[in-house]
This record gives sequence, C-alpha cells and structure tokens, in this order.
Amino acid sequence: MGRGRRLESRAMRYFKSDNTAAVASEILEAIAACNHGVAVPYGTDQWSETLDAVFGEFFETRVRVFAVASGTAANSLSLATLCPPWGTVLTHAEAHIERDECGAPEFFTGGAKLSLVGGAGAKISAADLAQRLDWFEPHVHGVQPRVLSITQATERGATYSPDEIRALSDIARKRGMAVHMDGARFANAVIARNVSPAELSWKAGVDVLSFGVIKNGGMNAEAVVFFDPDRVADFEFRRKRAGQLLCKGRYASVQLLAYLQTGLWRRNAERANALAARIAAAAPRLLSVPCETNQVFVQLDDARIAALSREFAFYPWGPTGSGEARFVCSWDTPDEDVGALCAALARLG
Amino acid sequence: MGRGRRLESRAMRYFKSDNTAAVASEILEAIAACNHGVAVPYGTDQWSETLDAVFGEFFETRVRVFAVASGTAANSLSLATLCPPWGTVLTHAEAHIERDECGAPEFFTGGAKLSLVGGAGAKISAADLAQRLDWFEPHVHGVQPRVLSITQATERGATYSPDEIRALSDIARKRGMAVHMDGARFANAVIARNVSPAELSWKAGVDVLSFGVIKNGGMNAEAVVFFDPDRVADFEFRRKRAGQLLCKGRYASVQLLAYLQTGLWRRNAERANALAARIAAAAPRLLSVPCETNQVFVQLDDARIAALSREFAFYPWGPTGSGEARFVCSWDTPDEDVGALCAALARLG
Amino acid sequence: MGRGRRLESRAMRYFKSDNTAAVASEILEAIAACNHGVAVPYGTDQWSETLDAVFGEFFETRVRVFAVASGTAANSLSLATLCPPWGTVLTHAEAHIERDECGAPEFFTGGAKLSLVGGAGAKISAADLAQRLDWFEPHVHGVQPRVLSITQATERGATYSPDEIRALSDIARKRGMAVHMDGARFANAVIARNVSPAELSWKAGVDVLSFGVIKNGGMNAEAVVFFDPDRVADFEFRRKRAGQLLCKGRYASVQLLAYLQTGLWRRNAERANALAARIAAAAPRLLSVPCETNQVFVQLDDARIAALSREFAFYPWGPTGSGEARFVCSWDTPDEDVGALCAALARLG
Amino acid sequence: MGRGRRLESRAMRYFKSDNTAAVASEILEAIAACNHGVAVPYGTDQWSETLDAVFGEFFETRVRVFAVASGTAANSLSLATLCPPWGTVLTHAEAHIERDECGAPEFFTGGAKLSLVGGAGAKISAADLAQRLDWFEPHVHGVQPRVLSITQATERGATYSPDEIRALSDIARKRGMAVHMDGARFANAVIARNVSPAELSWKAGVDVLSFGVIKNGGMNAEAVVFFDPDRVADFEFRRKRAGQLLCKGRYASVQLLAYLQTGLWRRNAERANALAARIAAAAPRLLSVPCETNQVFVQLDDARIAALSREFAFYPWGPTGSGEARFVCSWDTPDEDVGALCAALARLG
Repeated sequence: MGRGRRLESRAMRYFKSDNTAAVASEILEAIAACNHGVAVPYGTDQWSETLDAVFGEFFETRVRVFAVASGTAANSLSLATLCPPWGTVLTHAEAHIERDECGAPEFFTGGAKLSLVGGAGAKISAADLAQRLDWFEPHVHGVQPRVLSITQATERGATYSPDEIRALSDIARKRGMAVHMDGARFANAVIARNVSPAELSWKAGVDVLSFGVIKNGGMNAEAVVFFDPDRVADFEFRRKRAGQLLCKGRYASVQLLAYLQTGLWRRNAERANALAARIAAAAPRLLSVPCETNQVFVQLDDARIAALSREFAFYPWGPTGSGEARFVCSWDTPDEDVGALCAALARLG
Repeated sequence: MGRGRRLESRAMRYFKSDNTAAVASEILEAIAACNHGVAVPYGTDQWSETLDAVFGEFFETRVRVFAVASGTAANSLSLATLCPPWGTVLTHAEAHIERDECGAPEFFTGGAKLSLVGGAGAKISAADLAQRLDWFEPHVHGVQPRVLSITQATERGATYSPDEIRALSDIARKRGMAVHMDGARFANAVIARNVSPAELSWKAGVDVLSFGVIKNGGMNAEAVVFFDPDRVADFEFRRKRAGQLLCKGRYASVQLLAYLQTGLWRRNAERANALAARIAAAAPRLLSVPCETNQVFVQLDDARIAALSREFAFYPWGPTGSGEARFVCSWDTPDEDVGALCAALARLG
Repeated sequence: MGRGRRLESRAMRYFKSDNTAAVASEILEAIAACNHGVAVPYGTDQWSETLDAVFGEFFETRVRVFAVASGTAANSLSLATLCPPWGTVLTHAEAHIERDECGAPEFFTGGAKLSLVGGAGAKISAADLAQRLDWFEPHVHGVQPRVLSITQATERGATYSPDEIRALSDIARKRGMAVHMDGARFANAVIARNVSPAELSWKAGVDVLSFGVIKNGGMNAEAVVFFDPDRVADFEFRRKRAGQLLCKGRYASVQLLAYLQTGLWRRNAERANALAARIAAAAPRLLSVPCETNQVFVQLDDARIAALSREFAFYPWGPTGSGEARFVCSWDTPDEDVGALCAALARLG
Repeated sequence: MGRGRRLESRAMRYFKSDNTAAVASEILEAIAACNHGVAVPYGTDQWSETLDAVFGEFFETRVRVFAVASGTAANSLSLATLCPPWGTVLTHAEAHIERDECGAPEFFTGGAKLSLVGGAGAKISAADLAQRLDWFEPHVHGVQPRVLSITQATERGATYSPDEIRALSDIARKRGMAVHMDGARFANAVIARNVSPAELSWKAGVDVLSFGVIKNGGMNAEAVVFFDPDRVADFEFRRKRAGQLLCKGRYASVQLLAYLQTGLWRRNAERANALAARIAAAAPRLLSVPCETNQVFVQLDDARIAALSREFAFYPWGPTGSGEARFVCSWDTPDEDVGALCAALARLG
C-alpha cells in the first residue's frame, strides 16, 4: 500500500496497483472447466494432486506446491514453517511483510521478529546483510536469525539478479538460515531478467517461494513452492489451522495450473512490464528509481501530484511531502490510459 | 471429517460430504458479471460495499458483514474477536471447531480454550450448559467463559429451535458471554425449521454468525455476520493479519450477494434436505439420529458398511467399530444416486 | 484451587493448601550462604552449573535441569517444548494444567489443545487413554496427540505406581507422544510409593518432570528435569522469552540444590503425608477418595462444611452443593491443628 | 547484554553488569521477617495487599502495583496489556525489549511488532518519534502505533528529563498511544536527575512503569506500576497465565516493600552512580557517551580492550571491532575495584 491521503478514483485512469485488475479469461475458463461433479475436498482432488508435477516441470526440479488464498498467507505460512517463535526473519525495511500485512508474519510464527535491513530500490545488498547479521549472537538473550526473506521484484520494482540472490543465500546458508522469496511479482521479475524461473529461485539458493498469481491475472489463489521437500515440515498443519486449506480445493488449484500451462504468467507479465517501460521512457528525467518491471516511481512535487490526481489514480509514495509518486501497470491496463499518462508526464518532465 | 479408513471413491455414488459438490451456475455467473475493469482491492470495491445492506435486508436488521475464504476462518476470526486469550469458548464436544479445524480457534485467539459440553445430536441443552458453567469461577486461576458457540445445523444434522437458542443465549448473556453460531449449514437449518433467518439468529440472541455459502453452492467465500456492530471491534485488523482479507475482494463478495439475491441459498438447501429426507424415509429403522437437514446417520455394522462401500462413498462415523455411517446430500447430488442408496438401505434395513 | 466461596481464614487452623506454608530454614540458609560477591547472571553461575550433576545423582541418570519461578511455568514450558501448536496434550480433566493455570499451556505452546481424559482419583487409566487416543486421526483436520501429561501425586492425592506409569507411557510411545509428569507434589508421591525417584519417573517412561519444590518447603523455584537431553530442544530460548530465566540465577538454583542435598524433600514430604494419614485415620468412613499423600478428601454436606468452616480454613470441593471438602497438610502444619481437625472430623464421622 | 566474545571472568574485577551483584541485607532481612506461619498464596497475602498503598505514597498518587519475577516479565506483561496483537510498540533500536529479551514482547503480546527509532545515547527524541509515527496509516494494512516504550535510564546510561518525557508522551497521547517506561534502572535515573519519582514518571505522562529492584539490590522481584488503574485491564489474567503470579507471593512482595521502606532504592543507586562518576572522571577523554548514571562507556580499541581484559571483566560494546567498552557499577562493587579501574583507564587515556 502506498501512503498518503485517499485519492479520488472514480472514472479515472487507474495506476494504483496491479491488484485492482480483473481476472484473465484463461483463469475463468479453467474454473468453468473443472466445475462438474464431485471432487474430494481440501486439496486432495485430481487437480491439486498434479500441482507438484506441473510446477516441478516449470522449475525444472522436484517441488512441493500448496495453494493458499492470499499473498499474505503465502508469505506468513512460509515464514512460520521456517522460523521458530524465538527466531528472526531478516528482511528489507520496505518489504511487504514488514509494512503491509498488519503483522501477519508475527501472528503466524507465534511472535517471531522481523529484523530490518536498508538498501536502495528496496533491495538488500550482501554487505548490508552481513553487517546486520553481525549484531546477532548465539545466546538465549537475543532472537536468532533463521530466515532471509527477499522480494522479487521488490516493492520499488527492482529485481535481484541470480548472482545477487546467490550472494545473499550464501551468507544466509552459512548462518543456518533458510531463504524465502516473496514473489508476488515473480513473473514480472523473470521477464525483466530474461532468465529461467529456476535460475531466479532455487538455483540461486531460494528454499521457499511465494509465487504470486493474483496480481498477474489470477482470482484468489497463490502458490507456495518448496524447493526442498524437507522444509515442508508442518506446513500442511499450519495451513489447515489458519483456515487456508480451501474446502473446494479444485477452484484454487486450477488457477495455478492454468497460470503456468496456458503461458498466462508470461503473457501478462510481459505486457505489464512493457507498459511500464513505455511510461518510464516518456519521462526519463523524472524517474526516482530505475524502472525494471511493472512499477514506475517518479519524483514530482505536491503541486504536480495534485495536478496529475485530477486525471489519474495513483499513490503518492514515501513520507508526507516527499513529492514522489508510484504508477503500477497491470496485465489489463488500457493502452489508452498509458498513452495519456505518458503525455501528462512528458508535459511535467 | 468423518473417522475411519479412507474409502475408495472413484466412480462411486458420493455421499461423503456436501463440500465435494460443484459450484452453482448462479455463482459462476456473478463472478463473470463483475469481471471487467479495475476495482479497488481489499474489500473496498462497490460489491463489497453493498454487503451490509443486502445481508441487513435478509436478516431484517442492521448488520456488518465480512467475506473470508473458509469456514474455519469464519469461525476462528469470529471467536478471536469475541474471546480474549484467557477466555474460554463453551461448545459441544463434537463441534467442528473442536474436532475438525486442527486447533484453528486456539491459533486465532492466541490460545483461548474450548470447554466442551455433551448432548445428543451434537446439541447443547440449557441444563448442560448451566451445569458446565458452574465449574468456572471468577478468579485468575481459571479461564473465563466468554463465548458460547453452537452449530446450526449441528454436526449430527440436528437443528436448534428459536426457543432453544434463546434459552442458551439467555444463560450466556447472564454470564457476560457472547453467542456465536457456526452456520456452515445455516441455510439447511432455516429450511428445516421453516422460520426466518432472523428468528434463527439475532432474534434468538445470536451475536455473530458464520454464515456458510461454500457447502451450499458457493466456491470459496463465507460470510461473517455481526448483528451487533459494537462486537466487530478489531475484526478487520484480525482478518487482514490472518491473510483473509482478499486482494481482489469483488470475487468473494459477489458470491455472497448472488447467494442471497438469486435465492440460491433457499433452492439449494431445499433440494439437499429433500434428498436426505428421501433416504431417511427409505430406512427409517436404521436411523441412529433423526434426519432434520441434509445429513443421514444410520446404524449398521462393519459388514454392512463394507458392503455399501463397494457402491457408495461415505464416512463411517464415531469410534472404530461403532458400525455407524453418515450420508450427506448436497445441492447437486444426482437423483439417481439417491435412488440407488435408498434401494440399498432398504435392502439392509 | 478448590471451588466455592471464599472462606474466612483469619486466625483459623489452615488446611487450604500446601502453598500457604512458610519456607524451610534449609532454603533460607542456602540463600544466605550464596549471597556474597558477584555471580554471573542468567543461569551460568557456579551453583546453576551443578544442577545437572546433583539432580543426575538423585535420579541415577544423566539429566538436564532448569530452574523456573513457578509450577505453572515449569509445566507450560515443558509442554511448549514437547508439543507443537497443532498438537494436543492428553491429560486428566481435573489436571492442574487444565483447571488452575488460566490457560497457560495454551499460551506457552502457541495454542495447542488439551484433550481431556476422565478417571477416578484424577488418575488416567491405560484403557481410558487408549480409548481417547482412538478419536485422533493422522490428518491435518484434527490436532495430533504429541504429549501425555500426568500428575504425580494427582489433584486428588492419588499416586501412580511405576507399573501404571509404564502402561501409560508405553501407549504414548507407540503414538509418538512424549510423557510429561506434573510433579508439583512429586516428593509426596515418592514417599507414598516408597520407591526411588528414578523408578517413579524415567524408569517408568517419563521424559520430562516438573519437579515441585515450592509446596514442599521452597520459596520460589521449581525444577524442570529432562531425562532425555534431546528433548531439551529449544527450551532455553522459550524460558528466556517467557521471562523465566532469572537474572540472579544463583538464588533459584541454591533452593533446588538444598532441597535435594539436605534431604529436605524427604523430611518435609514424610511429615506432610503422615499428618494427612492421621486425619484420614480419624474419619475413615468420611473419606471420599483414599488418602495416599498429603491431601484428605471427605464427603460431608453443606451443613457440616459450614460448621467446620468456623474453626478450619479449607476448600469445599467439586461442583456447588457436592458436600465434599479437601484438607491439605503442608510440611509446617502444626500438630495441634491436625489434632483439632481429627477431633472435629471424628465427631462428624 | 553486551556483544562480542565471552571474556574470562574468574577472579577478576567485575564490571560486566549490575545484575551480577549480591542481594542487599535489607532484602534478606525482610524475607526472614515474613517467614512464619501460613499466608494465603498468589498475591493475596497481607504484604502483597499493602503494595498499592506503599507505592502510592512513594509516587504521590494512586497506583496499582504487581510483583513479577523478572524484568523481562515486567516489560512484556505491561506491553501485552497495553498493545493488541495488531498494534506496534515504538521503542529505541537499542532498547532491552528489542535487543535482549529474545522476543519476549512479541510472545506476550501475541505477535505485536516493535517499531524502532534511533537516537544518540539510546534516547528517543521528540522529533524522531514524530517522524517515525508519520509512516503509520490508520488502515488495516499496517500495524497501529499503540504504545511508546522508553528506558529510564537508557541502555547507554543516559536519562530523560521530565520535560523530555513530557514531549514524548504528548506526541504519544495525541496518537492514542500509551506510554510505558522500562525502569530497570529507574532508581539510578531518579538519583541522576535529582527529581522526585513522580516527576520522572506519571507527572511526565508515563502510564505504566517497570520498576526495577533486582539490579539495585533485590533478589527476584520487580514491580509493575500502573498509574492509571483503568489500564490494568486484564493484566492479572495475563500474569497468571504467564506463570508470573508467584505461589508464595509474600516473598516477592516484601522485597518490593523493603526496597522502598528502608530507603534501599536511594542508597544503592546513589552508590552505584557515584562509583561510575569516579570512573568517568578518571578518563574523561575516553568517554564515548556522557556518564549520567551507573554505566560508563569508553572508546578504546581492540588492543587496549584486550589489555584491560586481563584484570577486568567487562563487555566490549557495539559491533565487532568498534573498540568501545562498557563498565557497569553495582550497589556492591568494591571501592578497590573501582580504584584499580580508574588507574588503568587513566594510564590508557
């Protein structure tokens, strides 16, 4: 969530977030296609039982995959499985799990702590991670580092390269920590980096991925992907206990399957990224951070933000008065809206 | 969940549960109808914002209504809002919240206790409730009774009359307790009792209702209905924190709206109840509890259970060797399957 | 805690509980003896570091021992170490952990459930345990049995024989459960059974013992004894996190040491048991349960309870109107008070 | 706790912490004086019942006072009473509750978050607090600021003036937040500031004070002082549930009473502060932060730290290689040890 006052959004060109998009037709068709007859409930239906195989092929390795109803649940259940209550999750100070989930990780873990690291573009550098870890000592007086959680693409639209992830995961591994990736916009990062999903995850040291579907065309299912089956541990008990084991599981699982099998993940991410690139190209001198995926951050001022707000819905960003603004493109943002935004920014820039 | 070994279910006539049913066409149509353009996320869209009014009309009073992704979440978030960690929820020993949610209420409440009451038909009597409450004392050494949770219809298919609910809620009210109703099959109970939804809930003293949609034709949305707006308290923070505030909220809310506005709740419950009544009528002497809603419990023995299991999928019930079995009809159970079961039971009975 | 109204207790002969006793001189002397100079804090002082050896000798095996400030903490930290949040602790319906700790086990475990078993004398029989366990199934819908917790001596003053413990622990072991013993009155049980502490604990299958000191002459320290070092797991993190790792640890540890090394545990338990036996012998026909340790339960009626309440402070027991009463002897109950009670009961009996 | 490797401490002059001191004779005498006859347990004894009055006189206002067994428990139970699970506690990044309690606040609150503020001397400035609060928005996506927790004296030995506290509490009050003070070394701060306990607490806007006794001569009891009786809320249930309601409550309460009634709090804090001032005066150019209370921080380097470590036990401070060191004086630090340290530092400085 961006900061600042609620902007008027009716009948406006909408760039607030990709979570306001509609559901892709491929998803609705998959739901309709499975809607016949009985199916055993709670994730034991025929569709749910193919998740591991389909995602395993996608990631070129053996995986365990579980559907949940929200990105918050995907992240928090992953972290709760990896981190004991007396542990701590190292993450960026601007991370979604720290800023936008109302303390969900603390709730699901039974009170584990998030320990914050800074860094431009909402990215954690290996040096900053190492320095932050230096504060923790292996005694009972302090929480113990057990998980590193990074966001791909980050809350600032940046991406980690495979090498950057590897540098971080190597540090984590040496401290006995697991590596979690919040991939609410993982597809956008794969497109941006032009590498394989495997290279951007387990091959670089990621143990568990919250693989986002909803923002990129899905309806209400996200995938939690375990690359190391041993790490699954008690995840399934925790999922049930959190009300995230869906009764009619087929309707979640077919969303995940269609997302991969129809190529939807790629088509939608490509389009959203391309629209953002168009906006960035229209106002290169306004960019406050480079545009890598489907988010554009521009440095304006209060007056120009107010002016744009008459036609466009978007979030001012950062602390009050920062003058920064965020524009997000989704898979179904109209070309016309992007064109109008480009023109408006070009006039301002 | 029933007990006992996993029964072979492929290509069989299916009576295990109503949660294996498909989604009603009215629900899919409502989803398709709202699937255009942007909608603000997280429960602030135009559909979500009409929930209070539509449910208020249905219940003939002012209500606050919230969508969540599962019945477990509906129950647990309700209880967590009503019960402090040092409180206790009085409920039946066979209640879903005690037996089938893997400790979800304890998780969401931060460790509140469920205190169990017995009673035939999985119903709590006023006398048993009063006697159980007599054990609690108002000091810090013991947990304090803060909520009564009853199931309507019960896990044995029975229903509470308005007067029975009133007798229980009067006792609860005198002890300063709130009244929660697990209405996973509330529609079936309304049909069975032939009274208004209001009479079976707030008019009889219910404060919060988990109003089930999924088992009766929905896809993945349940409604939490607060009849007393003051009781909402911090429910919305808790819902977010639990990953139950859905990102694309419209797709949940339109399910709840269609459920009421198309009359789906009534049509589906009427059919499921009627099918169960047909089965009960076919083997009246086998019934182990009276059939009131869409569940039929019959007293057989291991040999006859094994025989039936060759054609029908269902759950043996109770402890191993009890010889009891449960058959559940859903809104889309084929008439032909019911006919076959009636015939089979008639042969056994 | 007993039930019922608060009885007037000033200037009365006191039989309410053994937790109202003073502290034995051996304990105060040990505290004074260690009170010089600096000592490293938080359980790393020279006294704390001998706990394992001294208790190991007492129990004739290798142990890990930790001091905590209360019996509630001893029990709850043990259970939290043994039981995951989605697990359940099988225990007696009258157990202290269920009835008198305000939900502490649920708090420390992060919401694990206590599943109750009945049985006379607040004892669990092997048959009842096996039957109760039969209800749990190995799927995610229900909590999983992970710990058996028995009380020695029980809340009704009864004791388990080594064979009885073995029968229970064998059942638990087969289900993958750990065995915890609430030994708030363990010394009284050892005296009553006239066997070794080892025979009454690890030799019979107990994994973790809450070894009570406070009720039997201590001030404010209890011992948690792990017979299997592997089970210690993250106990020390949990203890710190619960504010139970005492800053000036020596003052707790010397209490535990003096308790064993001066023979205090035996002397005090012997006296308390003997006083109770005297009372029981004075009114054999009034006994509602046999008197084995330092508690005497008698069946009276409301009138006789009221009469006794003028001279003696004690707890009515059971539900209102049950007419039962409990008298507890401590290590420092005056002989004269016991004599007066014997006489009074003899008159009533 | 300081950072860095464990220093050899046998037979050395000891400046690691004031928590390694012995117990003052006034405390032991008070314990002995109450050790006779029965006393009702769990905080209802005659000594415990005078706590409110004695502390009320000390603080010149009506208070509610509760004994607990550790500073961690005092802080965490206070915070849990003031902050809901979805709330956040604003505190300094170096605060004991953040750095040295293994996540106890998160455990007791059910997963509330600590949100960190920087500032020299481990003090929070009004400007920094206001700026940090500016990040929180009143919606369900983020945790809500509910408590400000400041340490008096701070983890760097600094103190807040009444005006500084007032400036902070005014900001907190405007946001609907409560103000908690971690007063593990409150007595040292009162002496340093030469104002009344009232002026340094409730008169400046503090709602709840963890009033430390143990570091300043006590054995194992700390006081939680509520200046606003309404804020007590469910504290007593939480204390019991955490195993912090002590069975033989008199032995805790008499420590708190003796601490105030014999003037022990003042004598001990005066001496410890004076000793630290002597050290600071011996090496004024080495001081890394001003010395206000009983802690001295000096800027050395690894070589000089190693040299001092041969004779003195103390903690290196800050990140590895920072070259800073901390020396703490307690109420019973020998004059001779202080003299030796002064001489050694004078040689280095």
